[in-house]
Amino acid sequence: MKILVINCGSSSLKYQLIDTDGEQVMAKGLVERIGIEGSLITHQTDGQKIQKETDIPDHKVGIKLVVDALLSPEHGALTSLDEIKAVGHRVVHGGEKFANSVIINDEVMATLHECAGLAPLHNPANIIGIEACQSLLPDVPQVAVFDTAFHQTMPPKAYIYGLPYEYYEKYGVRRYGFHGTSHKYVSLRAAKMLKKPLNELKVVTCHLGNGSSITAVKGGQSMDTSLGLGTISGTIMGTRSGDVDPAVIPYLMEQADLSASEINDILYKKSGLLGISGVSSDARDVEAAANEGNKRAKLALDILCYLTRKYIGAYAAAMGGLDAVVFTAGIGENSTTIRAQICQGLEFLGAKMDAEKNNTRGKEVDVATTDSTVRILVIPTNEELMIAQDTAELVARG
Amino acid sequence: MKILVINCGSSSLKYQLIDTDGEQVMAKGLVERIGIEGSLITHQTDGQKIQKETDIPDHKVGIKLVVDALLSPEHGALTSLDEIKAVGHRVVHGGEKFANSVIINDEVMATLHECAGLAPLHNPANIIGIEACQSLLPDVPQVAVFDTAFHQTMPPKAYIYGLPYEYYEKYGVRRYGFHGTSHKYVSLRAAKMLKKPLNELKVVTCHLGNGSSITAVKGGQSMDTSLGLGTISGTIMGTRSGDVDPAVIPYLMEQADLSASEINDILYKKSGLLGISGVSSDARDVEAAANEGNKRAKLALDILCYLTRKYIGAYAAAMGGLDAVVFTAGIGENSTTIRAQICQGLEFLGAKMDAEKNNTRGKEVDVATTDSTVRILVIPTNEELMIAQDTAELVARG
Repeated sequence: MKILVINCGSSSLKYQLIDTDGEQVMAKGLVERIGIEGSLITHQTDGQKIQKETDIPDHKVGIKLVVDALLSPEHGALTSLDEIKAVGHRVVHGGEKFANSVIINDEVMATLHECAGLAPLHNPANIIGIEACQSLLPDVPQVAVFDTAFHQTMPPKAYIYGLPYEYYEKYGVRRYGFHGTSHKYVSLRAAKMLKKPLNELKVVTCHLGNGSSITAVKGGQSMDTSLGLGTISGTIMGTRSGDVDPAVIPYLMEQADLSASEINDILYKKSGLLGISGVSSDARDVEAAANEGNKRAKLALDILCYLTRKYIGAYAAAMGGLDAVVFTAGIGENSTTIRAQICQGLEFLGAKMDAEKNNTRGKEVDVATTDSTVRILVIPTNEELMIAQDTAELVARG
Repeated sequence: MKILVINCGSSSLKYQLIDTDGEQVMAKGLVERIGIEGSLITHQTDGQKIQKETDIPDHKVGIKLVVDALLSPEHGALTSLDEIKAVGHRVVHGGEKFANSVIINDEVMATLHECAGLAPLHNPANIIGIEACQSLLPDVPQVAVFDTAFHQTMPPKAYIYGLPYEYYEKYGVRRYGFHGTSHKYVSLRAAKMLKKPLNELKVVTCHLGNGSSITAVKGGQSMDTSLGLGTISGTIMGTRSGDVDPAVIPYLMEQADLSASEINDILYKKSGLLGISGVSSDARDVEAAANEGNKRAKLALDILCYLTRKYIGAYAAAMGGLDAVVFTAGIGENSTTIRAQICQGLEFLGAKMDAEKNNTRGKEVDVATTDSTVRILVIPTNEELMIAQDTAELVARG
């Protein structure tokens, strides 16, 4: 089934046309600088890549350009729009309402608007993308696939914070978790690689990229995850702080005379690898600086690896055991040194890395030693494929 | 050596007169409501307990009353003040300046004043207590024993938060850790109980009381601990929140229209067991309510146990192994059900609790099964004895 996958940001739009039958990407691309001077579309089909700078005042114009590109006789992938059986939209926040992907109707749209306060940077853009597709492809089913849905299986002890309970009831303050599509995808792949039923496995999935989260997946279900209400807790990220003693926030607001929105900005945009190292938010730059002797760059990497290792231990304790650790996303798939440093000291859990096997990037591989009782897997994530598959399945079911 | 141990709060003062040679408490007591109407002193010696309500306008008057009580012919413990060889003061925050206990001189006092900003609720009271003792016992050495000192062995990867590094340099924002005297005491006792050299042991010490912290003690040194800059992070406490996604703080400030000092107050005084259960900050009350079917009380206990279990797993991963888990302080020493619930699911680490052995309160006991490879110890803490011993040792050294 041919599915168009849309991931809308506030001024950008990523898309893939996927044939779920052969798990084949027929075309993909990126619309950038929507509503900003110098807007452009980059479109790729098998072996071809074109780029076109043109006026793109809003998301609807952007999606019209995508449709035109897909139908183009020169570099298109479709002969008729009828071939698109559904559109799958990545939606960041589904609140507590959506534990699964869902075919979009008026009721769903109303709920998405309700959840927008929890993800003010993301949900409004996701909604605009859905509305633009509804208007351009009115007869095609639209499906919402939520970053939060996979984590709705968490028990209350994992998602309730130690705050007055009324804040959960009144303002929805709880752990939601994100990157759910990625954690779900890699845990499904892990079971295939291990040739074991997913419902018998205890896996910690480490999605480490510019944004990062770590999830305890027991029997195929998310039991706990490191991101929370927002997208900054857990291990440190490119510019996001990771876990911080909550007492630090009011202390720092008073010491440095910061408002709530200023400290929020610092936690999201000036912290993490960038904040500690002072070098860059990109782990590759930080690794390069550390190799040249930059001590704060080395410290930033040490902290990233140390926090991740502690999460693996904590989640093993949460699940009562551990069968496999999975590394995915930009850093997880590609940084051999960060993977190695994270696993240092996990031997007592039965997780032994084979340094030679670990010397690979961007492909599915088991990098544990033969006698390691816990497997260590590298699995490139594929959120678009997961979205397309969820969408196809929902539409096929009707 | 006879040591007077003083623990000053803002309106109270606890004391013990300890003979370190026989590890014997000769007298102890409490001065309450200093500077408040209805102030009183409670004084205990072997088998006797007296209580006296009297005007106690300040700490100096309070300490004078303590001295008088110690010298009293009826219920005293000393014939002359000369018998007191030193006074050991509990000081909450030593910042980064003190990695050990120290004999107090003018330079130390100046540094204590510098650290007061980091512990505005505690250090000023500690300073007042020291000054009162200096004035009443001018020829007796005064020693400061810091709650933070034991944790100064933590490596930077454990104490630096993922924030812009300048906040560490400018405002001292880092993890300090507290209850150090307790964690040190119980880890020393653990080595004795296990008949192994402390420098070969990997121990997680769980100090669970009205305030709680969990520490990774490797080779006798604190490698990581759950309290941070302030005294609210880690597992939930009586009224303190434990770990909270930092994104929650600015979100909640905006949603509920709270100032930095109001949210700080909520995190310290209205959260934790009290905030979740809505019942009480006292774990015994919360356990009773849970047993009667109160769901939020049960949830509060589930969260306390779950977070503590995750810390045990995380710190085992941090140390690369685990030899023993120690429970201490009010809850750790006395709640058999909370200890049991924390250890549920740690069997994969080799930690197996013997339910029958666990059915004990307030005494040193190994509650692991015979075949458990990780020992589970209950050790009543004794911060006063630790303070007295540190003080005696420093004074003896000169």
